[in-house]
Amino acid sequence: MQTTFTLNPFDLPKRWYNVLPDLPTPLDPPLHPGTREPLEPEALSGLFARECVRQEMSSDRWIDIPAPVLEAYRRWRPTPLVRAVHLERALETPAHIYFKYEGASPTGSHKTNTAVPQAYYNKLDGTRALATETGAGQWGSALSFACQLFGMDCTVFMVRSSFDQKPYRKAMMKLFGARVHASPSTETQAGRDALARDPETSGSLGLAISEAVEAALSGQGTKYSLGSVLNHVLLHQTVIGLEAELQMQEAGEAPDEIIACVGGGSNFGGLVLPFYRAARESRRPTRFVAVEPSVCPSLTKGEFRYDFGDMAKTTPLLRMHTLGHDYMPPPIHAGGLRYHGMAPIVSRLVADGVVEPVAYDQLCVFESAVLFARAEGIVPAPETAHAVHAAIESARECARAGTQKTILIGFSGHGHFDMGAYAAYLSGELENARTSAVQAGGPLAGARLYC
Amino acid sequence: MQTTFTLNPFDLPKRWYNVLPDLPTPLDPPLHPGTREPLEPEALSGLFARECVRQEMSSDRWIDIPAPVLEAYRRWRPTPLVRAVHLERALETPAHIYFKYEGASPTGSHKTNTAVPQAYYNKLDGTRALATETGAGQWGSALSFACQLFGMDCTVFMVRSSFDQKPYRKAMMKLFGARVHASPSTETQAGRDALARDPETSGSLGLAISEAVEAALSGQGTKYSLGSVLNHVLLHQTVIGLEAELQMQEAGEAPDEIIACVGGGSNFGGLVLPFYRAARESRRPTRFVAVEPSVCPSLTKGEFRYDFGDMAKTTPLLRMHTLGHDYMPPPIHAGGLRYHGMAPIVSRLVADGVVEPVAYDQLCVFESAVLFARAEGIVPAPETAHAVHAAIESARECARAGTQKTILIGFSGHGHFDMGAYAAYLSGELENARTSAVQAGGPLAGARLYC
Repeated sequence: MQTTFTLNPFDLPKRWYNVLPDLPTPLDPPLHPGTREPLEPEALSGLFARECVRQEMSSDRWIDIPAPVLEAYRRWRPTPLVRAVHLERALETPAHIYFKYEGASPTGSHKTNTAVPQAYYNKLDGTRALATETGAGQWGSALSFACQLFGMDCTVFMVRSSFDQKPYRKAMMKLFGARVHASPSTETQAGRDALARDPETSGSLGLAISEAVEAALSGQGTKYSLGSVLNHVLLHQTVIGLEAELQMQEAGEAPDEIIACVGGGSNFGGLVLPFYRAARESRRPTRFVAVEPSVCPSLTKGEFRYDFGDMAKTTPLLRMHTLGHDYMPPPIHAGGLRYHGMAPIVSRLVADGVVEPVAYDQLCVFESAVLFARAEGIVPAPETAHAVHAAIESARECARAGTQKTILIGFSGHGHFDMGAYAAYLSGELENARTSAVQAGGPLAGARLYC
Repeated sequence: MQTTFTLNPFDLPKRWYNVLPDLPTPLDPPLHPGTREPLEPEALSGLFARECVRQEMSSDRWIDIPAPVLEAYRRWRPTPLVRAVHLERALETPAHIYFKYEGASPTGSHKTNTAVPQAYYNKLDGTRALATETGAGQWGSALSFACQLFGMDCTVFMVRSSFDQKPYRKAMMKLFGARVHASPSTETQAGRDALARDPETSGSLGLAISEAVEAALSGQGTKYSLGSVLNHVLLHQTVIGLEAELQMQEAGEAPDEIIACVGGGSNFGGLVLPFYRAARESRRPTRFVAVEPSVCPSLTKGEFRYDFGDMAKTTPLLRMHTLGHDYMPPPIHAGGLRYHGMAPIVSRLVADGVVEPVAYDQLCVFESAVLFARAEGIVPAPETAHAVHAAIESARECARAGTQKTILIGFSGHGHFDMGAYAAYLSGELENARTSAVQAGGPLAGARLYC
């Protein structure tokens, strides 16, 4: 039985899929942080490459992937789709479980899919350097790699908790020539303010974004680059889902459930949006499950409203699910999921009942990750492990109910830089983080912590 | 231009290539460690699976790969052959540089190619557990994975210097269910003796082998498994070279130079032997370059004679290039190359002038590894980096002389578990290790340290 579907290299998609014209409800416009008026595209051009701004608001359903980006994609794409037969056997489930494996990219995750076009479009604009933030380090590594590819400087503000937990991610960014600061840093006003408030803070993505935006606005020829949340980022990631559609056809199956983790939403959107389009056209019922950590439950417990993308309130306001721009999640190992907000596209689809969110605790997520690694021989990143856990729960339910189902997991990245977390889990030292908000009767009190 | 050659999954070789009938000079037989008489196959069966012993002495040119092993191979094979065009551009060389990438296997190196069949053949024999040693941890991870796959226990003796340098490799082995001991350990007589001699010793592969052999011989239903050196190990690795031959044909080129690192010789043999056969048949001149660390220079400075495979003199004697079974290499980061001996097949080919050995210092090796990573976006393991460095030197020579050449690198594994070494290199803290033998007028005095 064939279990790996690689696609012919020449079947690499030549266009990204833009979901904006196909959404059930149009997105609310981003608002200017000062005036709170709908934002003109020019206002974004100070921060982002021109083509990224154009894509952010485009109504074209298909957008061509530029030749130099395709050439770079060919270094690791198409990525394999794998039927997890060993996991199925271990679970004794009638479900068919597939995973789309993004771990073999140069930096080990899906993030390079958007890092490369963002660096390329900036290069076209004559940008000299990019500044960004990173949670777990996957986005920072990816952008460092992409900047290296096009000969640009790169500065990364890495959330303090990950900076301390993942020294090897930091080393990888430096290897690709980037400058890396622990965030909050003393490099920016936003960082200095945060350190003044709490010198011991473990940081957050929202704060690191503030620092990167400030560094971009104050740097010569420097622009800002965001690894998730925005429409153009999800657009670039659709290469994942477009490939997976072809590969599922090759496998002769159609997914009943597509499960991916959500931090900012780009990995989820990248896999799900092309399938959403196909399901919409064929009216085939498909469940789209977004998995988040129970301690940063923006979709399951946040409000759907306008909020800032960053802590210092320097970014445009986006209508999205949010825990509040000053929310500080505890330092769980899935650093890439520690974001207070969510991609407006994903938020919209949740609000419209298309996407189902679910939240899980760290400990049960690692338990499933170990089960997956032992069965399939591939170690999931802690972020990816959230999707793996949800899929395993679903496959177990199939076993209990005796129903067949085809499940597709978005396998966003490998966990080679997270072995410290696995070592802690295996030695029984890992604990479920609890937010002070949950513990102290804050806004999350009563949040159900699934396991 | 196509730069990645993946092969159709159905072109995965169905047979391994056994070089024994094609060697210019037959191998000298292994000798019994006690009697020093040529060893009967039965004598090896106490240690190894029966089929491995049969393969060790087989004169069949082709040996079928069993279906369950093929099925496991399909999880990561065929591995890609990549034309390193970005590296070529960075070097401004007319040379064409290809690399055969083994880094996307479940544990990140070529080692799973032999771990899986060794575990499988042992399972057929009814073996309950395997014991082994590991240097850098790549072999230990691979065997842990393979044992997990076939439901067997696994105990790994990990050379102390790597045990301390690479905690994440250790975590990976535990993740796959293995027990891991730092070697020398207190678990065996060989380990206790070594600790009594020098409690601060950083260990060696030769000593860790003694511990694993002792554990296998004293364990219930336990056999021993070796990750390199022996004929059957090189046999299993020929799947690399057989694929690469097809892929080079797809690329429309033939390699003038094939370069791989050598520790025990299996990665080198796996890539080179099928090309050796083809070159022999076509009489096409091909250089086969074996790259070793200057502080463990078995091929360039060792003697070609009978020696023990381990420090405690419990293994059969093999005729090979050796630095002496009690040689203790300094703790360089390329832990997989810290072995006093060499595969008898590789030794024979060096003695017969077919293979050219060369040795390099750690610092220049890391310099080239960083250059490669920045150009190609893939981080080489420190072992692999030795081959990368030799290839870069050769490509630079092509640029100086204005000659074209096609170079094929054996890219044995990624360096995701070696980022600590890269961090040390990038911060200027890495030094060239020196053997006391070189420094103090010992047997290696006058050894040329290339860079």
